[in-house]
Amino acid sequence: MTYRAFINFLCLGNRAVTILNRSSGRLLHIQMGIRNIASQAESGFNPAKVAVVTKMTRYEFEQQRYRFSELSEEDLKQLLALKGSSYLGLLERHNIHTRNVEHIVESLQKEGMEVRVVKRGQYDEETVRWADAIISAGGDGTMLLVASKVFNKDQPVLGVNTDPERSEGHLCLPVRYTHAFPEALQKLRRGQFRWQWRQRIRLHLEGTGINPTPVNLHEQQLSLEQHNQAHRITLMEAQSSTAPRPPMCKACSLSRPYLLPVRGLNEIFIGESLSSRASYYEISVDDGPWEKQKSSGLSICTGTGSKAWSYNINKLVEQAVGEVLRIGKAQMGLDIPLSQELIEKVTDEYNKSLVFGPEEGRMIFSIREPIVNRVFSSSRQRGFANRVCVRSRCWDACMVVDGGTSFEFNDGAIATITMNEEDQLRTVLLEN
Amino acid sequence: MTYRAFINFLCLGNRAVTILNRSSGRLLHIQMGIRNIASQAESGFNPAKVAVVTKMTRYEFEQQRYRFSELSEEDLKQLLALKGSSYLGLLERHNIHTRNVEHIVESLQKEGMEVRVVKRGQYDEETVRWADAIISAGGDGTMLLVASKVFNKDQPVLGVNTDPERSEGHLCLPVRYTHAFPEALQKLRRGQFRWQWRQRIRLHLEGTGINPTPVNLHEQQLSLEQHNQAHRITLMEAQSSTAPRPPMCKACSLSRPYLLPVRGLNEIFIGESLSSRASYYEISVDDGPWEKQKSSGLSICTGTGSKAWSYNINKLVEQAVGEVLRIGKAQMGLDIPLSQELIEKVTDEYNKSLVFGPEEGRMIFSIREPIVNRVFSSSRQRGFANRVCVRSRCWDACMVVDGGTSFEFNDGAIATITMNEEDQLRTVLLEN
Repeated sequence: MTYRAFINFLCLGNRAVTILNRSSGRLLHIQMGIRNIASQAESGFNPAKVAVVTKMTRYEFEQQRYRFSELSEEDLKQLLALKGSSYLGLLERHNIHTRNVEHIVESLQKEGMEVRVVKRGQYDEETVRWADAIISAGGDGTMLLVASKVFNKDQPVLGVNTDPERSEGHLCLPVRYTHAFPEALQKLRRGQFRWQWRQRIRLHLEGTGINPTPVNLHEQQLSLEQHNQAHRITLMEAQSSTAPRPPMCKACSLSRPYLLPVRGLNEIFIGESLSSRASYYEISVDDGPWEKQKSSGLSICTGTGSKAWSYNINKLVEQAVGEVLRIGKAQMGLDIPLSQELIEKVTDEYNKSLVFGPEEGRMIFSIREPIVNRVFSSSRQRGFANRVCVRSRCWDACMVVDGGTSFEFNDGAIATITMNEEDQLRTVLLEN
Repeated sequence: MTYRAFINFLCLGNRAVTILNRSSGRLLHIQMGIRNIASQAESGFNPAKVAVVTKMTRYEFEQQRYRFSELSEEDLKQLLALKGSSYLGLLERHNIHTRNVEHIVESLQKEGMEVRVVKRGQYDEETVRWADAIISAGGDGTMLLVASKVFNKDQPVLGVNTDPERSEGHLCLPVRYTHAFPEALQKLRRGQFRWQWRQRIRLHLEGTGINPTPVNLHEQQLSLEQHNQAHRITLMEAQSSTAPRPPMCKACSLSRPYLLPVRGLNEIFIGESLSSRASYYEISVDDGPWEKQKSSGLSICTGTGSKAWSYNINKLVEQAVGEVLRIGKAQMGLDIPLSQELIEKVTDEYNKSLVFGPEEGRMIFSIREPIVNRVFSSSRQRGFANRVCVRSRCWDACMVVDGGTSFEFNDGAIATITMNEEDQLRTVLLEN
């Protein structure tokens, strides 16, 4: 075992399975012996330079949105009222966020760390190079954006939820640390936490007429049109000799597999860009046979993402579970009462089975709303996979990473979706 | 009961529920008395002028697609091969379609009917005005396009599936009549069929900065960019004094409810245009309280549409049903074997419950992949409704009718979705 692997392993008491998958049986005993040590990070969290990337609040967004109409605050207030939104409500959330960011920055500076505050719109590779560690100050969306530009598995990325009362933050520290950030910082410095390496997805693209240049969807302002212009522009860039891309010309040249410049922390979504249009594609799971599919797209998620979109695609609500159990009971001729409690339990257990660990080196694919008929196959709709290959039969489709980075994926393009040790994202696990 | 209603009722033996909903109990007895008559259309199908609207085949589509690259047939052949498609396969399907269209046209002419063949791209209001009846020659997609322009509930619309071996055609005549079209025509002329009035959905739009001008997505070539340009162009048109639209200026004027110039035969989809983006909106069902929702959009379907997209959104696969039953069994501490046969039966019965009759005057709404957290409500994900109101909180969203006609639906816009007797589509039910 390499030194890196050994340190990883010392730091990750809860990675037994992963460790075992990678190493010999002997390791197991060592690990059992040092469980306590394992709950301590070998070296604390002591970065000299920290970049704090802040989200755009809805208030800032609404201002941005009408920046060309030169609205006064009063105009904006009236406009939002017309649309049934509360100006004061948005302003309050904005101020809460701003105060929380200030709190984070001051806490870091008190610890003698050099801090750079960067708005999500300005976050770039230069910031990543400069920082020893990066803190996302917002919600999960901001955390995903921050992570998307980090490729060094030793560079820690933390998320702090700056609107803990109102927004979820699965990828962030426990919400209480938003206000008690100095306490979090102390624990981090003392090593009273666990490093968590979250597995990510990598994408290879090959085929005819492909364009491996990413388009950023993170900016909320991005409209369909801007999205498409961006695709057109990047295509031009891509075709210029300077841009990194595989050898290709128009729609009539083949290209070698090309590793795309992003990693998926949550999921990859593949499908027609227009939400109302069905997607045609062929899929091969773990080098199995190619199967034709027509569906509302395809989702491939990590353990981290198994709690996100993929979960919402696959989860069942009590309404459905109750009906299935009622029908099953009748079919079996059983006369047992079906309590709400039972329905809740079953729903809960079923939905839990859709979630798996962020460190696990496997993915879940979900064929979304499959159209089953004489032409299209009705095989497994969902399952674990280590390698998924997809051949596009789409007209105007995209491959979207974590809802934020989009790649063209049209008829003739082939994507290979896998996981790789190198791509792990280094985050922290802090007890609540 | 009006004469029209009485004729409807005579013609529609299988409309008992609908009839009952609309009329007095006394009618029931009459109806029971004349079930046999009811299976006969009072007057046969004898149009003098028939428009035949033909689909665009994949072969034509591929030719169109590269029309500017001046490809020879040989080039096209090689290009398709590069993309893993079979030129000969596409050409064969195209020839089959073409022969079937010729067969339909000749059969109609033999009966002395005047026939106009119109490609789907050329199909317009003038064609609808000219024709006594319209035949869609293609699949369900073509049928939906044809129906979308028909507003007279007495103008019959028939669908003939021109690729019966390869495509589904829920909205078309039984597939055997594609080759035996003269036989179908004889039955239609003799009145050996039932008229079927399919209920459709109507949309009212109101709020700030709305644009009630439709954008046609039917043309397969339409890319995201074209889609958006279309929206921009129609907005300009709409703002010109000639175009029919409610009083509005920029984003700062309110408008009165405006009846949109389409009817939904299958469903309305509401959500962000970009398939990878979550949609924020508020919904009120049957004048109930407004509820905040964040989801992958919202679908509202008719009985006809309950077999289409809405079915794929809500149906369960055996994989899921099996797991639910297994968990339920364990939770109940039952030791009964769970046969594949049982799982299939339960799946089948559950999925059947998602389908209802095309003539029923109610809709099913489905909140798609709801995000449930502290902010967004976790109430019913799906249910029947007579009236659904939706307030958009989206940034770049659309309201798409039958996957073919799109309307802008951004923050501030409010849609009211209902059904109305006047909007029924007149089709035929022919025994297989």
